[in-house]
Amino acid sequence: MTIEMIEAAAGRLAGHLRPTPLLRSPFLDEIAGRPVFVKPECLQHTGSFKFRGAWSALSALPPGTAGVIAYSSGNHAQGVALAAKMLGLAAVIVMPSDAPALKIANTRAFGAEVVLYDRHAESREEIGDAIAAARGLVLVKPYDDPQVIAGQGTIGLEIAAEAAALGLTGAEVLVPCGGGGMTAGIATALAARAPELRVRPCEPEGFDDTARSLAAGTRLGNAPEARSICDAIVTPMPGVLTFPILKSLCGPGLAVSDAEALAAMRHAMLRLKITPEPGGAVALAAALFRGEALGDGPVIAVVSGGNADPETLLAALSTAG
Amino acid sequence: MTIEMIEAAAGRLAGHLRPTPLLRSPFLDEIAGRPVFVKPECLQHTGSFKFRGAWSALSALPPGTAGVIAYSSGNHAQGVALAAKMLGLAAVIVMPSDAPALKIANTRAFGAEVVLYDRHAESREEIGDAIAAARGLVLVKPYDDPQVIAGQGTIGLEIAAEAAALGLTGAEVLVPCGGGGMTAGIATALAARAPELRVRPCEPEGFDDTARSLAAGTRLGNAPEARSICDAIVTPMPGVLTFPILKSLCGPGLAVSDAEALAAMRHAMLRLKITPEPGGAVALAAALFRGEALGDGPVIAVVSGGNADPETLLAALSTAG
Repeated sequence: MTIEMIEAAAGRLAGHLRPTPLLRSPFLDEIAGRPVFVKPECLQHTGSFKFRGAWSALSALPPGTAGVIAYSSGNHAQGVALAAKMLGLAAVIVMPSDAPALKIANTRAFGAEVVLYDRHAESREEIGDAIAAARGLVLVKPYDDPQVIAGQGTIGLEIAAEAAALGLTGAEVLVPCGGGGMTAGIATALAARAPELRVRPCEPEGFDDTARSLAAGTRLGNAPEARSICDAIVTPMPGVLTFPILKSLCGPGLAVSDAEALAAMRHAMLRLKITPEPGGAVALAAALFRGEALGDGPVIAVVSGGNADPETLLAALSTAG
Repeated sequence: MTIEMIEAAAGRLAGHLRPTPLLRSPFLDEIAGRPVFVKPECLQHTGSFKFRGAWSALSALPPGTAGVIAYSSGNHAQGVALAAKMLGLAAVIVMPSDAPALKIANTRAFGAEVVLYDRHAESREEIGDAIAAARGLVLVKPYDDPQVIAGQGTIGLEIAAEAAALGLTGAEVLVPCGGGGMTAGIATALAARAPELRVRPCEPEGFDDTARSLAAGTRLGNAPEARSICDAIVTPMPGVLTFPILKSLCGPGLAVSDAEALAAMRHAMLRLKITPEPGGAVALAAALFRGEALGDGPVIAVVSGGNADPETLLAALSTAG
């Protein structure tokens, strides 16, 4: 991954992104005991940063590409669906037939053809490969794809510019981390454009594979019995492409509990007037509740997505945290 | 009110405002049956547009002014408090002693001195006048002040520029309306910079004094027994300064029910990932549910504030609308 690839992705994204300027509240600063700035990517098209990587990848495809295919029941699906629609490409999303009806409906609403499969009896890869071969579609992976990482890295370019405008030096940049595409992209951009800002991956407890992998120096997975409400980032282990970047550029990882993620959602709703989803709130949770693991300066926390269902928002509002 | 005053206010606000670029969701477009763009002023400093007018008024005070005083238990109080703090002015906010503890705490957190009074036994005007005289403070009214109207009008300058960038012509601009300061400011700005956009004031049922006043051609009040959850805009009648502007520039007013305001809050939380307060959601509610009273084109709805308490957000999420 190079800064030039990220700059090129930013060029292709120009005019197609929703601006997500930093937010701040004195009430959050008080909880954290330090200035807390929030990058609200929940306000991005489709409600998450995933639109950036999807557009970056799809807009880099050779002319004449028939369309794309992706496996996802979540934010990547919606990002690929909308980017494909805006670029005039066909999009097929392979989703388990027991995925939430709302997510299936959302993916269709963003213009994609949804192919359902029985995840107990069928292989999504076999189904996807057959469709891709028959229709000449290109697979778009959620994080282990250089153009996807470059697209997510455009968040880092914006953070570098916004931090410079605010005179923020020495800040830690807290990033929700699943497979590591966004974290790797932001870390690459900041290493080139704002090397005094240090990226820290943030994960749910039980899915802290990145934190443990960074500590061990090698890719480790999570226990199979682990569970978390942070569905957007409960990935099995760091990516093949992303982990070497994280290892080279990031500070130690942080992990937060589901209760802390819900409490961070509540504070974001009441103080910043945004609605994160649980996985999107883990970096803000770390900023608010894990200060002992942070340096002395300000933090910039990315709120990566907001595609929570009403029940989850109700649960967050009902927390006492 | 002149466009030059609004442009001057925009100049004084430059570098001190949080950007609030327009949001949109295909799901809201589907409900409304037309493109719906949302200006999310709930993301503004202090959680409402009121910061604009407060800064505009305070930054126009003559050098040497000791400080300001305001009566408000709501968004104007917080806007004045923060603007005064940022400008290095003393601020006294006169609030009823039975105001919600959270609002008192918030106003103090933004740096103001809060003076409580017993609203059953004391006159806030007498208390305020005595403090103002003793300490040389200037009263800042919530809407019937030219510099406040000019500050709110900067929203109109932004909408004009954003609509032009989107190629939106013929849109109706729906604005939550209490005393009419924001509506008058936006209407003045658009009349000068985007005269093809028509402003429509939006109010809660029972507090549709502006709609009825526009229909009658003269200022009318509301029935004393009227009640609404839209606390930010339950003002008694249009302002002395604001009404002539509304009468000259605005289309007919629209009124929505509390249930529609709550449903609009729910859709905003789930689809736009923002949390409006009830009064801040009435224009979006009109866009979504009162299409029969609108023209054929797209609408731009201002979400004017987001200072709802958790119980109100819970009520909104629990609606079926």
